[in-house]
Amino acid sequence: MTRVTAYAAPSEAAPLERTTIERRDLGPRDILIDIAFAGICHSDIHTVRGDWGPQHYPLAPGHEIAGTVAAVGESVTTHAIGDRVGVGCLVDSCGECPACCRGEEQFCREGAVFTYGSTDRDGTITQGGYSQQVVVTEGFAVRIPDAIPLDRAAPLLCAGITTYSPLRRWGVGPGTRVAVVGMGGLGHMGVQLAHALGAEVTVLSQTLSKKDDGIRLGADHYYATADPATFKELRGSFDVILNTVSAVIDLRAYLGLLAVGGAMVCVGAPGEPLGLPIGSLIGGNKTLAGSNIGGIAQTQEMLDFCAEHGIAAEIEVIPASEINTAYERVLASDVRYRFVIDASTFA
Amino acid sequence: MTRVTAYAAPSEAAPLERTTIERRDLGPRDILIDIAFAGICHSDIHTVRGDWGPQHYPLAPGHEIAGTVAAVGESVTTHAIGDRVGVGCLVDSCGECPACCRGEEQFCREGAVFTYGSTDRDGTITQGGYSQQVVVTEGFAVRIPDAIPLDRAAPLLCAGITTYSPLRRWGVGPGTRVAVVGMGGLGHMGVQLAHALGAEVTVLSQTLSKKDDGIRLGADHYYATADPATFKELRGSFDVILNTVSAVIDLRAYLGLLAVGGAMVCVGAPGEPLGLPIGSLIGGNKTLAGSNIGGIAQTQEMLDFCAEHGIAAEIEVIPASEINTAYERVLASDVRYRFVIDASTFA
Repeated sequence: MTRVTAYAAPSEAAPLERTTIERRDLGPRDILIDIAFAGICHSDIHTVRGDWGPQHYPLAPGHEIAGTVAAVGESVTTHAIGDRVGVGCLVDSCGECPACCRGEEQFCREGAVFTYGSTDRDGTITQGGYSQQVVVTEGFAVRIPDAIPLDRAAPLLCAGITTYSPLRRWGVGPGTRVAVVGMGGLGHMGVQLAHALGAEVTVLSQTLSKKDDGIRLGADHYYATADPATFKELRGSFDVILNTVSAVIDLRAYLGLLAVGGAMVCVGAPGEPLGLPIGSLIGGNKTLAGSNIGGIAQTQEMLDFCAEHGIAAEIEVIPASEINTAYERVLASDVRYRFVIDASTFA
Repeated sequence: MTRVTAYAAPSEAAPLERTTIERRDLGPRDILIDIAFAGICHSDIHTVRGDWGPQHYPLAPGHEIAGTVAAVGESVTTHAIGDRVGVGCLVDSCGECPACCRGEEQFCREGAVFTYGSTDRDGTITQGGYSQQVVVTEGFAVRIPDAIPLDRAAPLLCAGITTYSPLRRWGVGPGTRVAVVGMGGLGHMGVQLAHALGAEVTVLSQTLSKKDDGIRLGADHYYATADPATFKELRGSFDVILNTVSAVIDLRAYLGLLAVGGAMVCVGAPGEPLGLPIGSLIGGNKTLAGSNIGGIAQTQEMLDFCAEHGIAAEIEVIPASEINTAYERVLASDVRYRFVIDASTFA
């Protein structure tokens, strides 16, 4: 067991502070990663503040981890010392159930082990990437291609795969008309990925304040959802709507934007149920779906795809001392488009 | 123009009564059908009573029509006098838009012409199948295979295609675990079709009162939704849920019955929006979809499939004089499983 420096929440009500956390000794199939960068995901904030249920404290969040391999267990075959690797939302699963076998470890029947705040297979509570080092089983670290800088790679491990997976599942490619709802950490990845997949991309954001960025990142069109005319003009226009916002929305209005046979996929959930007129689905054989991150193999596929297409997250790198300030800015949607913590500042 | 005897609602508040309606002269691509049987669909009742908006009266409903060809226009090539044919919910469409070209005439961009209460291409209001004869363009009549008696074929034109289409769209086949919600006119077809497609079929009905029928028609399992234990026991059990009921249901509970990646498809809509916790979709990459009848080619495919597998509707044949009584029994769910009017009694 080793203690490493980390930033952790001491309770649900207190700001994160510097502390130390334990990392297990290297097992035969484990790798030790020197963390270089850790992204700040909105769900980090929800989790440490107890919005999604009680937690064990102190809790170090962070599931957008990029770094290099510092040591490998004796049986490790897939990574070597010095390799550039990433860890996302998952750090272990049973490896044997139907979900694991088809590469959807997030749906492991035994319960996937999430990167922080989750009960590990040895019974300890996992601690996330806001720290100097992490130990994971080799199968849950993915290779970060050389073409992607580590800082801009970190957010791909959650924001990237969370948007890539549904775009693939719902067949986005050349000729597909895709709307990305929300131009934040997830949305700005969705725009780049859908564009690189060959789709015609429209951003639907509350205002036009980020329009220039949206167009630069690959959007063909950009509309403000605050303007009711948007919903009239775009009626029946999209094959796929990727909804990246967790706010309460008018489902009838958004489903009206789908073409016949179209699908709206949600990757964030508001705290309360939404009102759904079932006729909005029946009227045009429409679909409303949810999507939850993605498996390890698909995460690797996404990173390779990003490297091939010159895609990465747009980030603001911050020192650890600014984490709490960054949290407030995330909550105020004041970030373009992801905060990434420079892990050298944890020391 | 010919006048034929029919049963029609004189207003939204009055019972149906015998009257005469107009049928157009045979155009070059039209066929005249001697109607043998007409099914009573729940939506007939909603429509004539104005539940779905104001109508032109008198209105003869009926979109589950089976009969024989009595005359053909000079350019007709697909049907001949004496052929056994059926007409469902659609009697015309533009034939040129993307939806029509891919065989989804129900989503015609110009607006499909529905079998009754719809504005026809000549500006008249269509009148349905509760009558002696009907004239339709040849492309909207399908061939009824000899293996299916005309009376038991009639309900296939709506109840059959409405359940067959989503089962095909959502990939139901050998190895698929399908739940059919509701054991009525649509549900009893869904059970037979899903079974014939090779799926493992479970009926979810309010009570067990129709269990024997369900098992006889091909269900492997039968559960009562009035029993809360059903939702615990069957949690995560289904790949596809076909929801045939229009009642308000607890979406969270039903979505909980889906396995990871599963889809629930609704073919009937309650009058009010349902509460949908989006997390119920995200948690397991789940899908909630709507499905609206089916196109003409798929209707023919369904009839051929039914003939091949010895499937047809379970019916009670009634004379025209019992239509109004039958309506009350449909509203009370007191029919096993479809009323079919013997059209010889219209005279």
